[in-house]
Amino acid sequence: MSTITVHPIGILHCDLKSRDVTPRNYDVSEHRGTIEIYPQFRAALEGICRGDTIVVLFWLDRADRTILKVHPRGDTSRPKRGVFSTRSPVRPNPIAVSELLVEKIEDTLLSVKGVDILDNTPVIDIKSSIVSGSREQQPG
Amino acid sequence: MSTITVHPIGILHCDLKSRDVTPRNYDVSEHRGTIEIYPQFRAALEGICRGDTIVVLFWLDRADRTILKVHPRGDTSRPKRGVFSTRSPVRPNPIAVSELLVEKIEDTLLSVKGVDILDNTPVIDIKSSIVSGSREQQPG
Repeated sequence: MSTITVHPIGILHCDLKSRDVTPRNYDVSEHRGTIEIYPQFRAALEGICRGDTIVVLFWLDRADRTILKVHPRGDTSRPKRGVFSTRSPVRPNPIAVSELLVEKIEDTLLSVKGVDILDNTPVIDIKSSIVSGSREQQPG
Repeated sequence: MSTITVHPIGILHCDLKSRDVTPRNYDVSEHRGTIEIYPQFRAALEGICRGDTIVVLFWLDRADRTILKVHPRGDTSRPKRGVFSTRSPVRPNPIAVSELLVEKIEDTLLSVKGVDILDNTPVIDIKSSIVSGSREQQPG
């Protein structure tokens, strides 16, 4: 089985310092944060505008990669299920997918709303959202 | 800058053999395919059911990782824009996010509909969809 190498494109800064204060998902979060994109990827940001919803992929560097079954939402009264049927951060390749609102862009700093990810988490990709716009507006 | 190591959890089998016949995105695809999950991850599938919409992350192993700006949808009459403002497969970490309908599950084989990815592409994660269900139905 081949191995894939991923290089972070940036890092998230926010006030979420522990998992117990972190919203379960972006759709229930009003938290704000700043995505710092590394300078060598500056050109890849062109076209992102204030008011856009962007899909951001994070590498959850503090998540356990060995656990395959979890109690849904950590509720031990519910039976365990496979991590691929949940959105638990625990999974073999702990990548989170968040849809975030861009409130401001300054050079390589994106101010975003809807953050459901811990401070200092590596960012590995950004793409435009399908859900937020009509197909006509989709850029590519 | 740290390096992240990702191990594929499975592989996609489908009839899409070249990019020119591959739908632009899952929301405009009626193509079917089979996701083969490797046996060591079998337990992580428990809880996925026929009729579910799942979020599948693919590693686009044939995508160029060095290009930061592209013509939207490959249309050279349109000005180039940064890859992070598009859903182009071209990007520093070429990870695709597709929402696919599960039509059948047999052991570690998931038959899915909505495929917008080339045959033989590595699968790196599966998670439940937020968009497809109500919050009450969300498992975790």
